[in-house]
Amino acid sequence: MDFAPSPRAQALQATLQRFMDDLVLPSLPEWHRWADAGLYPLDVLEPLKAKARELGLWNLFLPGLRDDQPGTRLSHLDYAPLAETMGRVQWASEAFNCSAPDSGTMELLQLFANPAQAERWLDPLLRGEIRSCFAMSEPDTASSDPTQLQTHFTRDGAGWRINGRKWFITGPTHPNCRLAVVLGVSDDRPQAPPHARHSILLVPMDTPGLVIERNIPVMDHQALEGHCELVFRDVRVGPEALLGEAGAGFALAQARLGPGRVHHAMRSIGQCELALALMCERALERRAFGQRMADFANVQDWIAQSRVEIDQARLLVLHAAWKLDTRGPAATRTDVAAIKLVTAQLQTRVLDRAMQVFGAMGLSPDTPLARLWAWGRALRFLDGPDEVHLRSIARHELKQAQAQRGANALHLRRWMPQPD
Amino acid sequence: MDFAPSPRAQALQATLQRFMDDLVLPSLPEWHRWADAGLYPLDVLEPLKAKARELGLWNLFLPGLRDDQPGTRLSHLDYAPLAETMGRVQWASEAFNCSAPDSGTMELLQLFANPAQAERWLDPLLRGEIRSCFAMSEPDTASSDPTQLQTHFTRDGAGWRINGRKWFITGPTHPNCRLAVVLGVSDDRPQAPPHARHSILLVPMDTPGLVIERNIPVMDHQALEGHCELVFRDVRVGPEALLGEAGAGFALAQARLGPGRVHHAMRSIGQCELALALMCERALERRAFGQRMADFANVQDWIAQSRVEIDQARLLVLHAAWKLDTRGPAATRTDVAAIKLVTAQLQTRVLDRAMQVFGAMGLSPDTPLARLWAWGRALRFLDGPDEVHLRSIARHELKQAQAQRGANALHLRRWMPQPD
Amino acid sequence: MDFAPSPRAQALQATLQRFMDDLVLPSLPEWHRWADAGLYPLDVLEPLKAKARELGLWNLFLPGLRDDQPGTRLSHLDYAPLAETMGRVQWASEAFNCSAPDSGTMELLQLFANPAQAERWLDPLLRGEIRSCFAMSEPDTASSDPTQLQTHFTRDGAGWRINGRKWFITGPTHPNCRLAVVLGVSDDRPQAPPHARHSILLVPMDTPGLVIERNIPVMDHQALEGHCELVFRDVRVGPEALLGEAGAGFALAQARLGPGRVHHAMRSIGQCELALALMCERALERRAFGQRMADFANVQDWIAQSRVEIDQARLLVLHAAWKLDTRGPAATRTDVAAIKLVTAQLQTRVLDRAMQVFGAMGLSPDTPLARLWAWGRALRFLDGPDEVHLRSIARHELKQAQAQRGANALHLRRWMPQPD
Amino acid sequence: MDFAPSPRAQALQATLQRFMDDLVLPSLPEWHRWADAGLYPLDVLEPLKAKARELGLWNLFLPGLRDDQPGTRLSHLDYAPLAETMGRVQWASEAFNCSAPDSGTMELLQLFANPAQAERWLDPLLRGEIRSCFAMSEPDTASSDPTQLQTHFTRDGAGWRINGRKWFITGPTHPNCRLAVVLGVSDDRPQAPPHARHSILLVPMDTPGLVIERNIPVMDHQALEGHCELVFRDVRVGPEALLGEAGAGFALAQARLGPGRVHHAMRSIGQCELALALMCERALERRAFGQRMADFANVQDWIAQSRVEIDQARLLVLHAAWKLDTRGPAATRTDVAAIKLVTAQLQTRVLDRAMQVFGAMGLSPDTPLARLWAWGRALRFLDGPDEVHLRSIARHELKQAQAQRGANALHLRRWMPQPD
Repeated sequence: MDFAPSPRAQALQATLQRFMDDLVLPSLPEWHRWADAGLYPLDVLEPLKAKARELGLWNLFLPGLRDDQPGTRLSHLDYAPLAETMGRVQWASEAFNCSAPDSGTMELLQLFANPAQAERWLDPLLRGEIRSCFAMSEPDTASSDPTQLQTHFTRDGAGWRINGRKWFITGPTHPNCRLAVVLGVSDDRPQAPPHARHSILLVPMDTPGLVIERNIPVMDHQALEGHCELVFRDVRVGPEALLGEAGAGFALAQARLGPGRVHHAMRSIGQCELALALMCERALERRAFGQRMADFANVQDWIAQSRVEIDQARLLVLHAAWKLDTRGPAATRTDVAAIKLVTAQLQTRVLDRAMQVFGAMGLSPDTPLARLWAWGRALRFLDGPDEVHLRSIARHELKQAQAQRGANALHLRRWMPQPD
Repeated sequence: MDFAPSPRAQALQATLQRFMDDLVLPSLPEWHRWADAGLYPLDVLEPLKAKARELGLWNLFLPGLRDDQPGTRLSHLDYAPLAETMGRVQWASEAFNCSAPDSGTMELLQLFANPAQAERWLDPLLRGEIRSCFAMSEPDTASSDPTQLQTHFTRDGAGWRINGRKWFITGPTHPNCRLAVVLGVSDDRPQAPPHARHSILLVPMDTPGLVIERNIPVMDHQALEGHCELVFRDVRVGPEALLGEAGAGFALAQARLGPGRVHHAMRSIGQCELALALMCERALERRAFGQRMADFANVQDWIAQSRVEIDQARLLVLHAAWKLDTRGPAATRTDVAAIKLVTAQLQTRVLDRAMQVFGAMGLSPDTPLARLWAWGRALRFLDGPDEVHLRSIARHELKQAQAQRGANALHLRRWMPQPD
Repeated sequence: MDFAPSPRAQALQATLQRFMDDLVLPSLPEWHRWADAGLYPLDVLEPLKAKARELGLWNLFLPGLRDDQPGTRLSHLDYAPLAETMGRVQWASEAFNCSAPDSGTMELLQLFANPAQAERWLDPLLRGEIRSCFAMSEPDTASSDPTQLQTHFTRDGAGWRINGRKWFITGPTHPNCRLAVVLGVSDDRPQAPPHARHSILLVPMDTPGLVIERNIPVMDHQALEGHCELVFRDVRVGPEALLGEAGAGFALAQARLGPGRVHHAMRSIGQCELALALMCERALERRAFGQRMADFANVQDWIAQSRVEIDQARLLVLHAAWKLDTRGPAATRTDVAAIKLVTAQLQTRVLDRAMQVFGAMGLSPDTPLARLWAWGRALRFLDGPDEVHLRSIARHELKQAQAQRGANALHLRRWMPQPD
Repeated sequence: MDFAPSPRAQALQATLQRFMDDLVLPSLPEWHRWADAGLYPLDVLEPLKAKARELGLWNLFLPGLRDDQPGTRLSHLDYAPLAETMGRVQWASEAFNCSAPDSGTMELLQLFANPAQAERWLDPLLRGEIRSCFAMSEPDTASSDPTQLQTHFTRDGAGWRINGRKWFITGPTHPNCRLAVVLGVSDDRPQAPPHARHSILLVPMDTPGLVIERNIPVMDHQALEGHCELVFRDVRVGPEALLGEAGAGFALAQARLGPGRVHHAMRSIGQCELALALMCERALERRAFGQRMADFANVQDWIAQSRVEIDQARLLVLHAAWKLDTRGPAATRTDVAAIKLVTAQLQTRVLDRAMQVFGAMGLSPDTPLARLWAWGRALRFLDGPDEVHLRSIARHELKQAQAQRGANALHLRRWMPQPD
């Protein structure tokens, strides 16, 4: 259990940090000008992407399976601190071709795409030329029970006809989004067990019948890249659209979960660190009742609690990344649920304290706090609500307790004082 | 201590409830169509206002001091449940000419305006023809210490020249906003004690030099009526602009605080009740893991905690309203701080639970929850951050404790076991 | 809804306050000397009881149904503040013959005892000559589901034979305890519905076969009057032991719940007020880092939060008492669950803050805080765990929501923005 | 940053686990019989100590500086999981000669004792023949500011005369306690800076004038080994009593802090793990409302939250232990404050949940929960209240923030959207 990044990761971290300071931060005002006008700031991004690629800060998230593929061969543990650094600016990951949901799509394609699919979709994704979305959630299905997904894939000659409705799908309104990775139930496997009825189809965004019905504002903020409601009305795709085996949809979708949650968790921690830094800065400069905010005991409590909570959460994520590297995704399922739960709850808590130190200014867009706070609230749903993760962690714990009930040492009675 | 509304208030409550059900709720879609297009929905409001006035649901908040003035002569205790009912829809109060900040402006003018000022400003406000804003907060002054306000009133002939910057001023972008009530320090009272240096000027919104610099988005939501940053650059007003005595600015501003906080608190409670009702409704209809949400123990805990917290908060507000009616604003200062604190903290807490029951839908604008939740966060700053109220409640408590230290019964040592 | 105490209650309150100050507080050291020696301090109590009776501070809790009975005819609302005052000293209620469980026993007997039972048990209880215990909880039955109680009453000639085990029964080791009021399932009603199978028997404590197996320490504190485990082994009683109708046990037991919970809740609030007063006192006298504790912002937060939480809880209890007086116990069931929940959770919270201000001294018996804190933890179980009350409040709320689903105004969809 | 225990530590862990299961747990009833009779269970302990020593489970906490000393040369990181395992039974550490405050005393003596002192005190401590206490806290000094300590060491010939009062001193009533390590202010250094005025004296417990005034019950529990109030009245010791340099008292006392807090923290985590195991066990076997407790969503939430909080806290402690090993105590001061804070707050939280699952039984001494819960409350004061640690963590964070204010990247303005 060694949490130290490799020398190579440390070198990349130094380069990345400089990149953030020297190139990303100075781009913030320009980015916001575009974004406030409702335009995706490609003119800001493309030069950053070119520079990042030149410096080797590209596809950092991707271990890389084949020698001829881009990819850094960094472990998840090595990548984690890089994700934290990128995460401080919500859009920065894209400059390094490391942003969700594309990172997951690339992992998925690298594992399961056939050569033709890889050439058509994976290669331009790896080069950062196109973007993708992953269409799973549906309005009428609790995301806690995905076997109830209703989007249907009907056999249609050699290909398929897709009908259904997806929502809260991230990415479709990005100007470069070309691919929807769609999870649905195939009509040709009615007798399979519930977890073996679903398949994944690779659907070009411009396929007739695929409509972006709306870009749903999340916590009153409409993302430029979109959290969209998509409708599929008799969308036809050929046999080349099927990713992996028919009926293997869930198994495939699972494969991309673990790393993605580590990335998300570390980006959230980066945002909490930013909030803590801003909170300290403001506490040092602002005065009330004749004292610096930094000298008020309650402000000190918020700062200290934030510090110890962030440090604990980071260690938990690094531990999960290390376990993912050394024992694989199956052994890490509960750990990954735990980091999802912990970091999403952490974000709103730390951001809330930072806003309180800022006063009314904390409500305004003059700081990144209000948006990050609301984003933290949304995080408590994205990739499953808190309760689904609490439940799966508890069931894992109870299963282990049940297994040990026969065993001697843990049996309840042995720990009790026993009167004669 | 009698918290029951008068028979007249009960009758008004029944009429108001019907009005909300039959006229306000059906207007919601139309309202949102206008608002989403960035337009203030006057076409929705004006017919509602006309109808409300016809039914006597007009200026309900206003006790009314002179017989010839509109005003209902309802006590604050009587008005409180009406505010709760209106508060369920954020914009509904305006239909009854009961919305902030106008209610406060009307109270202020009714108390202190001279006949000419009353005719020019109070009468059209009472008729709902114009609206107003109250310009107090400044970007460089912690609102916890208003003696530091920097907007300056310089003597200029018989009148004044105003220079300064205000922010988070509610109302300026409402299409009917005609009046800014401005608090600032007058240059002719340099030797007065800090609380006697400020005056209030009534400034027409169209006075040259008064600029709405921006409408600040609050928690990522830009209000149609505006939470604005206002700049005053050599704004000149005549002697008729001075409200009450020069130097009495703080005393005047205080006068409008108590009732306004009761209104705010009750509207917040109305929003919490709405959230609780929606949470129950959703819990009854939504299923996960083969069970109704309503049957999960954690969802039941959220519902029950919300119920007992709302009930306690409402009793606290009614108690403060009753005390305001019977003992006046000076005796009620700490009570008013307490209801401000309690209801602002309550709102985010109850709304948070409701959102969690709704799942991802709770993040979207398909329910009122996300916006109300974020609004609850903002409430923790508007009219002063939590900490200012905690501090003033604590100091009041400590002052009483200090006073009783000489007294026998409460002295620490008497409650202690005393070993020989 | 009038929460003001009657003039008579106000006069009693003044007398009671003086009694507490002049007679109870000075007795504390003597009480603790006896108690630390493991002896029930009857020599301290009996003179206080005599004096209290002389002053009319006797059986204050008891409305009194018959003109010839002692009893004050105070409403529950009138009695509530008196209970708060007594509650500040944990044993003080006994000086006024107002302590649990006797107050409940007296109410029960006044309602349901026949003349012989009243003469034998009620009259000496009313005179404060004997004490009683109420034997309901059992070790193998979750108190959340009392229909599972297993203590059996077997027909035995004209009388009954009792077998079973009860625990956490308050009172049996009090030197004057003479009567156990026992709830059990009668074997002569097997076909009755679950809630109509239980009866109540009045069992003299000295009946052969009734054994106090142990006095269970609660939170490491062994109460002098006992929280006991009782065993009934073939305990025989005659027909005169049956209280009310056979099979009416639950109905009878319910009758004593409401008032008892109001008393408990108000005593808890008295203890919270004491803790708050001590916290202020200590904060005013203790210094750290060159400042009074009273000047630290976090200490101020604790004081202010305690004040607003106590005030809200008291209003909730007074409201429940008022409703109990005006609408009766059936209409007040959920309110009574709510005050039980709220005050038990409040106590540990407020006491915890007070201890923190006291530093290590707060852990010691040099203040009443540590014991009250632990007692607050126990309160969260006595009369049912938090979860049972949360559940019943939630089910009540959901039932109302279900009933209103057909009604127009509250229906979910009407509150939603409705896109075209 | 490698958190894995060494192979040798893993082997010791296996032996220790068996020892706990096979020898300690079966001794629990016997221990409680002695303890309930008010006797320190030496007859239980001594055979366990002999066996532990034989198995090499002896002085495990002690890295060992000289080759001829006992000591395991385990790193703090290696020892940490062993402390967790021992900690599950509150008295078990003593069986391995690893209990506080002796472990700290031994570290202190190993670092600073001269040969005569080592022979007289360290050697018998290492052999487990005697025990010690560390006398620092005083009733009239906030432990947050130890420079105010008032116990005086007056020059008296070649030796010293001690006068003062200490309290909450752990250990004096242990039957083997022979040594008090006393921190006080020496009268021969009045002109030294406040942190250089104190010295440490080694005082035999049987020195005339040293009186154990009382064994203070902590949270209503009187520990057998004592949390005592000690009075020193003209206690005379010779020059051989001085440990290290005169005036170096604080520097010496600091040296024992870090490791001791790691031990404490890991023992607390062991107690939390025990509580979680008991909670699961009880949830699996107990039913309410026709369901296993384990199937209630709120119980699942408590279990899952406890799991993720314990895991995070343990990682934080292991990280601090690793840092203590690799960078030394000076660099680890804030980390050590953090683990003290986090584990003390964790304990009461986890224990509280476990008690709630147990129902009334959780209040009784039939489980270890009630005592551990109250102990957790006391932990929030021992070694300094939460607030002192929060304050020192915050000041450290703010100092770093202040240092970076000049630096470019973190400056507040750079993270803000910047309107033109």
